[in-house]
Amino acid sequence: MRIAILGAGAMGVLFGGYLSRENQTWLVDVNEERVKKITENGVRIREADGREALYHPDAVTDTSGLPVMDLVIVFVKSMFTRAALETNRNLIGPDTYLMTLQNGAGHEKQLLEFVDREHVIIGSTQHNSSILADGYVNHGGGGRTSIGLLAGSGNCLHEISDTFTACGFDCAISDRVQYQIWNKLFLNTAASSLTAVLQVPLGFILDNSYACGIMEKLAGEAVAVANAMGMTDFNAEQIISEIKTVLSNSRGGYTSIYADIRNGMRTEVDTISGSVVESAKELQIPVPYHEMIVSLIHAMEERA
Amino acid sequence: MRIAILGAGAMGVLFGGYLSRENQTWLVDVNEERVKKITENGVRIREADGREALYHPDAVTDTSGLPVMDLVIVFVKSMFTRAALETNRNLIGPDTYLMTLQNGAGHEKQLLEFVDREHVIIGSTQHNSSILADGYVNHGGGGRTSIGLLAGSGNCLHEISDTFTACGFDCAISDRVQYQIWNKLFLNTAASSLTAVLQVPLGFILDNSYACGIMEKLAGEAVAVANAMGMTDFNAEQIISEIKTVLSNSRGGYTSIYADIRNGMRTEVDTISGSVVESAKELQIPVPYHEMIVSLIHAMEERA
Repeated sequence: MRIAILGAGAMGVLFGGYLSRENQTWLVDVNEERVKKITENGVRIREADGREALYHPDAVTDTSGLPVMDLVIVFVKSMFTRAALETNRNLIGPDTYLMTLQNGAGHEKQLLEFVDREHVIIGSTQHNSSILADGYVNHGGGGRTSIGLLAGSGNCLHEISDTFTACGFDCAISDRVQYQIWNKLFLNTAASSLTAVLQVPLGFILDNSYACGIMEKLAGEAVAVANAMGMTDFNAEQIISEIKTVLSNSRGGYTSIYADIRNGMRTEVDTISGSVVESAKELQIPVPYHEMIVSLIHAMEERA
Repeated sequence: MRIAILGAGAMGVLFGGYLSRENQTWLVDVNEERVKKITENGVRIREADGREALYHPDAVTDTSGLPVMDLVIVFVKSMFTRAALETNRNLIGPDTYLMTLQNGAGHEKQLLEFVDREHVIIGSTQHNSSILADGYVNHGGGGRTSIGLLAGSGNCLHEISDTFTACGFDCAISDRVQYQIWNKLFLNTAASSLTAVLQVPLGFILDNSYACGIMEKLAGEAVAVANAMGMTDFNAEQIISEIKTVLSNSRGGYTSIYADIRNGMRTEVDTISGSVVESAKELQIPVPYHEMIVSLIHAMEERA
């Protein structure tokens, strides 16, 4: 397949590297320096056992000479999704599938500005990856990658799932992919956003009764929204208990949104807690804790 | 009159100094060093025009030898009110009045554990004062001091008001003192608490649309509670406009609750935003923004 990956960050490099095993793969990034390094040295992936693998996907800043793709995977930060697709519109033909595996929910809205519902693939992956240097990442851990079409069922999904699996991803087609996206969203919207506002590691939320109370309120709001969206299996008590398990297993961990606030950067809060607010608005469900935390994080982004 | 002032902080020193002009006045503080300095050097008050005045109220840590007072004024931080009254209970006789001019609302609840409603004086003052050293304060500005009894109308209030006025305080008796307390509370609960969470100067709330939106939500909640308490004159739109005027006049200013959080200290949030939550609970009014900001501040107090 012809696959373009927008964004050669931690996840882009991981997927670009693996997928280049069996596909004609292009990594697209706005950072000239980074693209130059990947072109010269390839991408290097350090696995959890310490071993390293080298791959050679193409890397470009300018896609104007490239053919139309079978699949375009968006791995830029969510606030750059629209700009990235706009700039590389030429890669998208009538048969091109657009895939998002980005953190948070609601990314499909932006993809739908470029293709129809039958060509949008949403998904969720348990892989994590962090940048060691340009084109060099640490593949912290793996797991299941679930993908699903927004509408229709086209065979394309099998072809994509097959090549993902052949390239080393445990990929499953699911008609419950929204469930998986929201299941992951609960942790991020209830806990990660809070670690950003409080500037604390994940374990603090477990240890501090006030922080824990806020987390539970946020989780309750998000579950109520998911329930109203039709995902009726979710139960607040159970989700809260699952979140606590994760917090307990990663007490000392810091979230990327925490780091963004600490470093005075823009965050992805709009596709995390912000996506809950968006959905809640449409369904007229009150989510005051979410509204407040999104506003707090945006206010913190704009501090001098 | 025999007047004891609990707490020789910025406001205690100011009131102790002034009131000692015409009254037998004791400053009571737990800090031995501070009491020793005041005993040796008196209290010094630097006025806004730069001139300084020296007064000699008595200062003690241990009140066990002292007579019963006509008036006890509580100027400790609100979380220490109960302990201060407990320790100095011997100053309180059947005719003693207890007065609070502390920031925030709801202090009367603690005073009522020591005297009946006819002996509790609540009030609000526009004076501000900051500590330069032990027993040495900067009197930044003055204004009206309003006092009122919780119940009854006793002549005592005139006597107290007269001596306050004779000592340099512009003091008025008001049967609308709860109005004045809440009028001051709106600014603190909607803006000061927020500067603590965001760690910004007051002007930031005016300049940042997200912070401003949160301030407006907080003000709206507090006004709804005040309305339900019977203070029906308050109007959210007008209060928000008044808050904006204050913010605009003190853009670069930092609040004491901001400083407490920055310095890793306990704050007075329970008698500011916390008192709104308390009253809202009794009246069954939803105040989610207040609940969340109180929890956030308590969580921040407990960060390592």
